[in-house]
Amino acid sequence: MINTVVHDALRETQTRSNQQLEAWLDTLSSQDQPLIQAMRHGLLLGGKRIRPFLTYATGQLFGVSLAQIDTPAVAVECIHAYSLIHDDLPAMDNDSLRRGQPTCHVAFDEATAILAGDALQTLAFTVLAEGPLNPAAEPYRIDMVKTLAAASGAAGMCLGQSLDLAAEGRAVDLEALKRIHHNKTGALIKGAVKLGAYAAGEAGVAHLHELERFADAIGLAFQVQDDILDITSDTQTLGKPQGSDVNADKSTYPALLGLAGAQEKAEQLYQEALHALEAIPYNTEQLEVFARYIIERNN
Amino acid sequence: MINTVVHDALRETQTRSNQQLEAWLDTLSSQDQPLIQAMRHGLLLGGKRIRPFLTYATGQLFGVSLAQIDTPAVAVECIHAYSLIHDDLPAMDNDSLRRGQPTCHVAFDEATAILAGDALQTLAFTVLAEGPLNPAAEPYRIDMVKTLAAASGAAGMCLGQSLDLAAEGRAVDLEALKRIHHNKTGALIKGAVKLGAYAAGEAGVAHLHELERFADAIGLAFQVQDDILDITSDTQTLGKPQGSDVNADKSTYPALLGLAGAQEKAEQLYQEALHALEAIPYNTEQLEVFARYIIERNN
Repeated sequence: MINTVVHDALRETQTRSNQQLEAWLDTLSSQDQPLIQAMRHGLLLGGKRIRPFLTYATGQLFGVSLAQIDTPAVAVECIHAYSLIHDDLPAMDNDSLRRGQPTCHVAFDEATAILAGDALQTLAFTVLAEGPLNPAAEPYRIDMVKTLAAASGAAGMCLGQSLDLAAEGRAVDLEALKRIHHNKTGALIKGAVKLGAYAAGEAGVAHLHELERFADAIGLAFQVQDDILDITSDTQTLGKPQGSDVNADKSTYPALLGLAGAQEKAEQLYQEALHALEAIPYNTEQLEVFARYIIERNN
Repeated sequence: MINTVVHDALRETQTRSNQQLEAWLDTLSSQDQPLIQAMRHGLLLGGKRIRPFLTYATGQLFGVSLAQIDTPAVAVECIHAYSLIHDDLPAMDNDSLRRGQPTCHVAFDEATAILAGDALQTLAFTVLAEGPLNPAAEPYRIDMVKTLAAASGAAGMCLGQSLDLAAEGRAVDLEALKRIHHNKTGALIKGAVKLGAYAAGEAGVAHLHELERFADAIGLAFQVQDDILDITSDTQTLGKPQGSDVNADKSTYPALLGLAGAQEKAEQLYQEALHALEAIPYNTEQLEVFARYIIERNN
């Protein structure tokens, strides 16, 4: 039931963000170039579009229309897409399939994949700098640039990926594992939520603190559930090889806490997320349901 | 003589931009991480700092102090440094030495070099969004983000690198060669000049058009002279293997126009650059001397 509600909401923002991403790609000249084709491949490979969803859902909290949230929603997905292209490279995770399709460096070549990732990161900042915003959000445009850069760079996502690579094949304690995920996935999830708040202007900005607490909790819960699914799900449902964490000798929450302990941790993070939302005097139902979905999803 | 004047001016902005770059790196947490160390390696490997110089020199035209130009000067160099790290990767130009030192992926590893480049690109936008500016430039902060993103992404530097890779080992005509260089090096050189203009606020913005013409001319002249030096200089002076273009079967201006024709082209671009500056009612001597240096330098 929760899954159905969230899937419908996700589908709506998926469709919307895909259209918006395509429209931005269409603005580029040199459409015949492999670089642009590889960017398109990476951006439109599918995916749940969880980050744009969070940006849209957070902005909507404060009564802003979806159209006025497109700009930050697209920007955050450009960052996510670039990070997947680079993470899949042979020197990184060396993945040749993603969502059942060849990864960017397989469909094109490594050099083109590196450049496509680079240019998608740049596109995120172009979108934030040039895309339309709610007039109330205009004073916060530069804060959006700050937020997205902080979430994705050397104090956020890139750091997390670097910590994760360094931890492979080594025993990692709970604190270190939390640090990896806080940066690798948590930072951009938090960024997505914060961008949604900025898109609503003053009203959203007034609740940044609570929204950050919410985002920290669901960001970590997302990763805990990912680790759980790696054990409990199957390859077809996951869309990636089940058991790949165990095989890659990766530290995970179930490995450190046991399966029941990890499930308890996810539930506790869900409660933290709900608690953070309590202080926001708007209808937070969509975010609440999404938080539940995070820890109940099966893929 | 011209070289001495320019070298002194370059040295001043080199020292200044190096200090500024270090200061930004020092703001990052996780200094013990290879990611941060690799960023530092890539940023502080040396180099002429031509782009920061152009940003400083352009801003100074309009009476702005160097301190009020640090922010865009650092940002543009972060982009340049990231592009060098990625260009040197095995999948791209596969260079193991730069300025006599091991390239980033040799000193660290490929994954770290990819991430360090990624995070340096992000840092450029953090710097633009957060760094101090002349109050008169504050209204143009978001234009700076736009300008830097436009210069470096899929309609600028990344496109140029992609076109260049695609052209390797193929015959390329003059128009195609110009397109490669216009994007690969010209776009960021133009971006550096435009950022300097924005750093001066209204006064600089009023002359954006002339400055763009100036930058287009010296950007191309820079490349023509690079091609000439590949033939006429020696490995030690160049700091990279002489004749590497010929050996890599790259199309160059001397290959298409002959050596004398290429030298004539460089001189003609220099005259175009001077002509563009004529319409600017400020003391443009530093930019004029720099334009001369571009086509007279021997490394």
